[in-house]
Amino acid sequence: MKTQVAIIGAGPAGLLLGHLLRAEGIDAVVVERASPDYVLGRIRAGVLERTTTDLMDRLGLGARMQAEGLPHDGFHLADGERLIRIDIAALTGRQVMVYGQTEITRDLMAAAPERGLEVIYDAADVALHDVDRDAPWLSFTKDGSEHRIDAAFICGCDGFHGPSRKAIPASVATAYEKIYPFGWLGILADVPPCNHELIYANHERGFALASMRSETRSRYYIQVPLDEKIEEWPDDRLWDELAVRLGPEAAAHITRGPAIEKSIAPLRSFVFEPMRHGRLFLAGDSAHIVPPTGAKGLNLAASDVHYLSEALSAFFQRNDNDAVARYSGRALARIWKSERFSWQLTKLMHRFPDSDAFDRRMQVADLDYIASSVAAQTTIAENYVGLPL
Amino acid sequence: MKTQVAIIGAGPAGLLLGHLLRAEGIDAVVVERASPDYVLGRIRAGVLERTTTDLMDRLGLGARMQAEGLPHDGFHLADGERLIRIDIAALTGRQVMVYGQTEITRDLMAAAPERGLEVIYDAADVALHDVDRDAPWLSFTKDGSEHRIDAAFICGCDGFHGPSRKAIPASVATAYEKIYPFGWLGILADVPPCNHELIYANHERGFALASMRSETRSRYYIQVPLDEKIEEWPDDRLWDELAVRLGPEAAAHITRGPAIEKSIAPLRSFVFEPMRHGRLFLAGDSAHIVPPTGAKGLNLAASDVHYLSEALSAFFQRNDNDAVARYSGRALARIWKSERFSWQLTKLMHRFPDSDAFDRRMQVADLDYIASSVAAQTTIAENYVGLPL
Repeated sequence: MKTQVAIIGAGPAGLLLGHLLRAEGIDAVVVERASPDYVLGRIRAGVLERTTTDLMDRLGLGARMQAEGLPHDGFHLADGERLIRIDIAALTGRQVMVYGQTEITRDLMAAAPERGLEVIYDAADVALHDVDRDAPWLSFTKDGSEHRIDAAFICGCDGFHGPSRKAIPASVATAYEKIYPFGWLGILADVPPCNHELIYANHERGFALASMRSETRSRYYIQVPLDEKIEEWPDDRLWDELAVRLGPEAAAHITRGPAIEKSIAPLRSFVFEPMRHGRLFLAGDSAHIVPPTGAKGLNLAASDVHYLSEALSAFFQRNDNDAVARYSGRALARIWKSERFSWQLTKLMHRFPDSDAFDRRMQVADLDYIASSVAAQTTIAENYVGLPL
Repeated sequence: MKTQVAIIGAGPAGLLLGHLLRAEGIDAVVVERASPDYVLGRIRAGVLERTTTDLMDRLGLGARMQAEGLPHDGFHLADGERLIRIDIAALTGRQVMVYGQTEITRDLMAAAPERGLEVIYDAADVALHDVDRDAPWLSFTKDGSEHRIDAAFICGCDGFHGPSRKAIPASVATAYEKIYPFGWLGILADVPPCNHELIYANHERGFALASMRSETRSRYYIQVPLDEKIEEWPDDRLWDELAVRLGPEAAAHITRGPAIEKSIAPLRSFVFEPMRHGRLFLAGDSAHIVPPTGAKGLNLAASDVHYLSEALSAFFQRNDNDAVARYSGRALARIWKSERFSWQLTKLMHRFPDSDAFDRRMQVADLDYIASSVAAQTTIAENYVGLPL
């Protein structure tokens, strides 16, 4: 098989890139290791920046998101005593949209056939070849037989564990990484959220987050040690802990319900440079990870593929090689800013096992200052809604 | 001898407090371990917040400061490639004033006799007694004989190493401390400054600061390891290093000259709570230290004594014990915010020996974000000019 752009990974990054390319008349094929059901079963991010919703709207695929998504004007930081509201709408003139990654993926998946975007699921052993030559190609196995896709470019949208990043030689790349000394234990439940906006809480027992996917589906998290075992957290214990950490005001409105998903995820900051090697591009989690505090992961993947689709359009429409060469730098400039924000919000809201009394008072002083300063609230708000593309 | 308020320490904190009390008709005596010349020989801070200059003006002691001080509309952060200007006047509507601590001290000292503020210099072995009773007193030795001052209150403005803080039992207090893994090597020279505004530089070889005391007296600093020996830094080597760290734009305007003072100071964050015990108050460095990045030390001492003079006025004029009880909390609320700012600016601008590649990229991302965001610049500016009293 031959195409212009071969995309590895049918998560939101890969599918969004495929649609953006198709909208420019560029041929693209997406190859995905898993099944459609598996892809849709991954519970991930849920807060979309305006930059991300704009992309969906521009593609004409935002109708369900606009109808069912929940526009949010703000969110809260809790410090154990009070809620500090960050009024992002008043401070920035923009909103964010609560709409699950699963729903975005579903919308992009459903529109693929009509837009001429081929998606090959259940493709095993995907491998990249000749990425540093002019004719790169992919190989994979499906239904017991070997397949090959020749393309002008390969785009690695295959996440942190996918093969794309590994196809870039270590000798030409640099990886930056920070592993945080805790994880997030998350619960998804079909109950109404305790607040119509998100609450990020820094409690002496650790961080907690009250989030949601819809008006009837809640997503909560608590900070736990990295070696915590999920069996130690039956639903009741988790609900009890959330009520304590989120504080009495939020706790009074928590509706409990059985977990439909419960898992522990580690927190990581990771950036891989450069994001292009020859004819291979990286986008989204394959090149960078943010801790989930601040909800930047999916939104960064969306800005990556926006930049990447522009670069590839310039190449195919105007034979512009410079645009291709500029992609990595352009994407990374925004990525580092989001890494910074995610890292700072993570440091502000979590309890670190190695922090001393002075560090703790600096967290308190930071929260006090944020509560008192419009400028400080604006820095958080403008990052939360998404820095300009 | 008997007075209403006995003040230990004739630095700017003690003298300013004495004058503020005298302006309210309260009797005060200042006891100082050193000689006037020794006090005036201490080279310290040089950037005054508007809150501090307002206090001098209110006392009618700001004439020389207004005539000879240099009002500054902004300062610069340098990242090795560019100068990021923080336009504090445009962002906050206020200025800061460059006027050496030595000059403030000189003005306060000169005005003491005419305002009826007695200052006893060369007082050895100052000791505090009965601070937790209604009749505290001080003892000291001068000219070979023992002296005693009885007062209603004792105010410890005697710096980090003075006896006042040690008079508060550890059992009722908490000390918070952070020692930074580097010091500042400073040079004072009678040469024109390289820039009419301050430059704080984060260079790969470490932090540097270009500051000044006047249009003909410059103050420069470089970050050095804690075990650095001053003999290893002859003037020429120091000027060479400054030229490298401050970057070519600043270096082109450096005028070299012989050091009239050169020393290495450690950097420390320190807060002692509470700042009152019985009839003893702490103010300024006796209760808290900030790293010098951001020039908050003298300004915090000034806001402390402002609060303290208000509390003591309320006591002597209205017998208001509550004001006395509120002093510590009121002062500490502002102190913690300044500690936060000084700590963050220190972390932003220095090279930490234990930081990894990711930490370093976060510094770069922080500086990039500050360069791009009016809100981020405003948070720095509003702290630099001084948060409201």
